[in-house]
Amino acid sequence: MRVKTALTSEKILQAQALLREAGADCWLTFARETATLPDPALDLILGGHCVWPSAFLIPAEGKATAIVGSLDAQNIRDHAPFEVTGYVDSIRDPLRRALEGMDPKRILINYSSADVMADGLTLGMHRLLLEILEGTPYPERFESSEPVLARLRSRKSPAEIESVRSAVKETLALFDELAGFLRTGLSEKEVADFLLGRTADRGLETAWESDQCPAVFTGPESAGAHASPTRRFIEPGHLMNIDFGVRKDGYVSDLQRTWYFLKPGETGPPEAVRRGFTVLLESIRRGAEALRPGITGWEVDAAARTHITSAGYAEYPHALGHQVGRKAHDGGGLLAPRWDRYKHLPLLPVEKDQVYTLEPRLTVPGHGVATVEEIVVVTESGCRFLSKRQEELYLVRG
Amino acid sequence: MRVKTALTSEKILQAQALLREAGADCWLTFARETATLPDPALDLILGGHCVWPSAFLIPAEGKATAIVGSLDAQNIRDHAPFEVTGYVDSIRDPLRRALEGMDPKRILINYSSADVMADGLTLGMHRLLLEILEGTPYPERFESSEPVLARLRSRKSPAEIESVRSAVKETLALFDELAGFLRTGLSEKEVADFLLGRTADRGLETAWESDQCPAVFTGPESAGAHASPTRRFIEPGHLMNIDFGVRKDGYVSDLQRTWYFLKPGETGPPEAVRRGFTVLLESIRRGAEALRPGITGWEVDAAARTHITSAGYAEYPHALGHQVGRKAHDGGGLLAPRWDRYKHLPLLPVEKDQVYTLEPRLTVPGHGVATVEEIVVVTESGCRFLSKRQEELYLVRG
Repeated sequence: MRVKTALTSEKILQAQALLREAGADCWLTFARETATLPDPALDLILGGHCVWPSAFLIPAEGKATAIVGSLDAQNIRDHAPFEVTGYVDSIRDPLRRALEGMDPKRILINYSSADVMADGLTLGMHRLLLEILEGTPYPERFESSEPVLARLRSRKSPAEIESVRSAVKETLALFDELAGFLRTGLSEKEVADFLLGRTADRGLETAWESDQCPAVFTGPESAGAHASPTRRFIEPGHLMNIDFGVRKDGYVSDLQRTWYFLKPGETGPPEAVRRGFTVLLESIRRGAEALRPGITGWEVDAAARTHITSAGYAEYPHALGHQVGRKAHDGGGLLAPRWDRYKHLPLLPVEKDQVYTLEPRLTVPGHGVATVEEIVVVTESGCRFLSKRQEELYLVRG
Repeated sequence: MRVKTALTSEKILQAQALLREAGADCWLTFARETATLPDPALDLILGGHCVWPSAFLIPAEGKATAIVGSLDAQNIRDHAPFEVTGYVDSIRDPLRRALEGMDPKRILINYSSADVMADGLTLGMHRLLLEILEGTPYPERFESSEPVLARLRSRKSPAEIESVRSAVKETLALFDELAGFLRTGLSEKEVADFLLGRTADRGLETAWESDQCPAVFTGPESAGAHASPTRRFIEPGHLMNIDFGVRKDGYVSDLQRTWYFLKPGETGPPEAVRRGFTVLLESIRRGAEALRPGITGWEVDAAARTHITSAGYAEYPHALGHQVGRKAHDGGGLLAPRWDRYKHLPLLPVEKDQVYTLEPRLTVPGHGVATVEEIVVVTESGCRFLSKRQEELYLVRG
């Protein structure tokens, strides 16, 4: 088990309150071999793994129970806040008995077409569940846990916000260390390796898989996003952006910063670069100004996006921001346009204590991609930056 | 991308041959945010990740195609053997067009109640797929990819077998290093930390999550399996077993070894320990002797299991063996009893070039749990050990 019982206990109590708020009776997470195919919900309520088909039942009132393979039982009993039943042959009878004992009228299970963090139940496990419960009234009572699970992830406690802030602080310190190392002639890969080495020195893990964390993109020909660092070299006149985060105490950061490499004789960036970066920062400012409880995500995205497009740049092909927590893409509401692929997530209202990134991007032809990604927490009436902001383009000479 | 294109290209060709063998026209893997919720199939055919809803279409004949978010497109085009279409707004139209172009009669998708490695499609993604394909004939043509995917994982090429052997060799060398370190008074945690340190020194990763890899269990009160190392100390008279593996070149090992810590004055293990360990080794020998192409997994398990129970020991509450490959639990057929939780997996016939563990266990009351786990590859007429076997109980003095 990798997460402290105090944290999972707190989350289970919060889940029970959210179940009552939603008028649901029980939340069932049904999973197996979670080290290979993790249900993201288990990060919150178990903080570890199970091997055989396992059921984690959280009722709106009363004790949380887990039915797990006998070899998993002791470990889960010792480390997680569940009453544990171990089985050898089949989960069928103990699971049916447990549900019959509770007789829940509304049962939440983990599926969502829109939100990956609430979509941990596989099609095969759903079929297994239907087979196990054949002849009972429970399958008809299933509904999606997405609304409860999205709130459980996104309504951050002060301790959770502090953990994100702490991961942000480490990341910014790593960017500061990088500043002394940067020069033209380095490859994207060498820049990434420097950051990975310093991350390991601090005893930290990267926020996502280290082949793309940090992601480093230099110059007008770079992939720009979602790719591993290459042997492409930094040249004078390049914009370079880095997307990077670390995990600390189970919570992550996700930040982007942009550098410009001066050409011989230049004392500042060319006008096109300067203007692009100014538009980028202003779009973040406009997004942050719009962000407050009750506004929908797409409206916040639009505030930032229209500033970029009305300045004559192509719009960024992604969301302005996503939530951050145990994962860099932490699920729930998005600050995103109403594109089909985002489903209903941009329509969800922003809530207090959610933590979002703000990460517009734009391309300056001939130089590269400028991105800045900040992290903010939603307050009563607006938002507050958890990251010390990048307020000017970082310049590197030589 | 973490896997070489040569390997994924080889696997895609193998998948196409298996599709033809099965009479299927197309295999569709439909996934998103795979760093958070990986479809295990993508390890084989993509060797990397995608963020937005993505479709990987492998036809029985012709070119494999991928439809992915625009930010993922360049990376996948550069590193994976797919013809790539990137989208911004929605995967709907390009996916419908691609399927209409192929018009496949039998379409395999990744779900299985029995085999986690063939169960990567989530319930929410399945619903999204049905919504996207509404009004087309394709949803009715869906069936499980399990038979094809299980063969794709388990029919190992000589290069794959060599990779597993190489991971096995590293693991045994690490056990050898450990031998000089072991003594009573150490905690399970200290033993685990020693192995983790030496693993890092060799530039290797653990085969599964490092909080349970190595798993270390000492004495009669230990959890015995599936738990993290504790502050429990090794005492004279303890049996200690370790379950451990490493990843090398994308393939893993999974091995167990057992030690006995002599009491003052003892020159060998007590009779009960000696007898238990002899029964354990003989049960492995009987399992290996039974293992050959065509036999079903449960028959192999029974050969080992009945030797243990007929010697008066409780039967082990798990399978005799599972397949090993890119993952320690690599899916497909199992050497397991016909317990409900294993579904049809113990009924599958053993095939040549599959790689299995053999890992019975038994408890010696008052001393602890004895386990040995070896790795074998199935040959034309039997099996061959990839691991140098533990042929006697390792003794530690002092």
